[in-house]
Amino acid sequence: MRVALGIEYDGTGYVGWQRQKNGVGVQAIVETTLSQVADEPVAVVCAGRTDTGVHATGQVVHFDTVAERSERSWLLGVNSNLPEDVNLSWAVNVSDEFHARFSAIHRTYRYLILNQHHRSAINRGRAWWVYEPLDETAMQAAADYLVGKHDFSAFRAAGCQASTPIRELSELTVTRHGTWIAITVRANAFLQHMVRNIAGTLVMIGRGERAVEWTRSVLESRDRTKGGIAAPPHGLTLTNVIYPDEFAIPQNACTDEFRL
Amino acid sequence: MRVALGIEYDGTGYVGWQRQKNGVGVQAIVETTLSQVADEPVAVVCAGRTDTGVHATGQVVHFDTVAERSERSWLLGVNSNLPEDVNLSWAVNVSDEFHARFSAIHRTYRYLILNQHHRSAINRGRAWWVYEPLDETAMQAAADYLVGKHDFSAFRAAGCQASTPIRELSELTVTRHGTWIAITVRANAFLQHMVRNIAGTLVMIGRGERAVEWTRSVLESRDRTKGGIAAPPHGLTLTNVIYPDEFAIPQNACTDEFRL
Repeated sequence: MRVALGIEYDGTGYVGWQRQKNGVGVQAIVETTLSQVADEPVAVVCAGRTDTGVHATGQVVHFDTVAERSERSWLLGVNSNLPEDVNLSWAVNVSDEFHARFSAIHRTYRYLILNQHHRSAINRGRAWWVYEPLDETAMQAAADYLVGKHDFSAFRAAGCQASTPIRELSELTVTRHGTWIAITVRANAFLQHMVRNIAGTLVMIGRGERAVEWTRSVLESRDRTKGGIAAPPHGLTLTNVIYPDEFAIPQNACTDEFRL
Repeated sequence: MRVALGIEYDGTGYVGWQRQKNGVGVQAIVETTLSQVADEPVAVVCAGRTDTGVHATGQVVHFDTVAERSERSWLLGVNSNLPEDVNLSWAVNVSDEFHARFSAIHRTYRYLILNQHHRSAINRGRAWWVYEPLDETAMQAAADYLVGKHDFSAFRAAGCQASTPIRELSELTVTRHGTWIAITVRANAFLQHMVRNIAGTLVMIGRGERAVEWTRSVLESRDRTKGGIAAPPHGLTLTNVIYPDEFAIPQNACTDEFRL
């Protein structure tokens, strides 16, 4: 029996999805809890590995088990045993052809910026506070250079182990809602730190430190040292993963949509 | 010199605004930090005392000092010394006639409910998770009975020390935004636990456990034991305090409006 799960987590207290030498990953927490509920050792495969401090509202995993539980039992049983900073959003039985990583067609991340002159206690750990006024129109114009299929070497972490730097961005939008700016990025797949490196570059343009066209020269340089800094991890959330309709994977509920 | 401050805090780690035997209040944190920046002991007076675990985006205080600092210096100096779960939103010099508590005309609180079938790790500590579907139209109809000037004894904590149970609600609205329900309450002043007791009663009606008209009988009973439970504190936020225009007190910025 193969089961798929939708997972939400506050990444603040974790070293990312995977276990690291210096701390606990979300994966280990999920596997430990699933193993308790299944009453056998369970290993999960995720749609997108998130870095230290990065959040998720739409992470998807799958696992195989001989345990027979209803979808509702998985949801309730696992949620009552997970710590308060991790929860399941849904659980569904899937065919053996489903694979959380390889079946995914699109992944969507949202980078959130709080653009006001003072920091916010309530929103700390959820958004990057940028106090200089940002020009979101310039940021969107810059973002438009990155949409489509490109060599994203200039936005790739030094340690990235992907076999190719070619990725295809199907969406990169910058929207302002009062003091908030949201950067929404959708692609088939991402390079390590790619969204944070894009956000850091767009913020330099939003501040007026660089012209809109600079984005193109950074992209064409294929040189990470030419771009902006990586935006901090706590503004980033994996919000959605899309699969072919045949798998009937639930769309991420709008929990976080309203609060952006 | 009298100075007014706008204060935001995440109430999760505090026993409320005031110091208690069992823990630290936000007031003590603010006074300690202000005293450092002013280089003399400072005592503050607040617009509304919040309970344990209750948040604020629009708390207002005033204090008197002989220290001469620019408004910008108060803001930056205090914010760089406050812990990450408390911050100032603004600082302004005011006349000696201004009093954070007695000059206030209206106080606004928002009670936030997350109404979906699973809990949310990202939003824990910010909203009351209610998994039964709530009928927000019924909740609004019930809320309408409470608008106006009434004896709110039925929505008053046993330990409330106010001299009269008469309060005047000028607004009580229930709005749904996807899986979110916000209860917004505005009044000249509130009794202890009044907003949480109103929210608990409205949720019973939203669940269909009581009829809309039950609200009137609870109100008319003037008996706290007739109403619903007190909603948990972590869904509640003091969002705004209104003063006469002559004091030129900044309106609370919309930091939290967009995220509700």
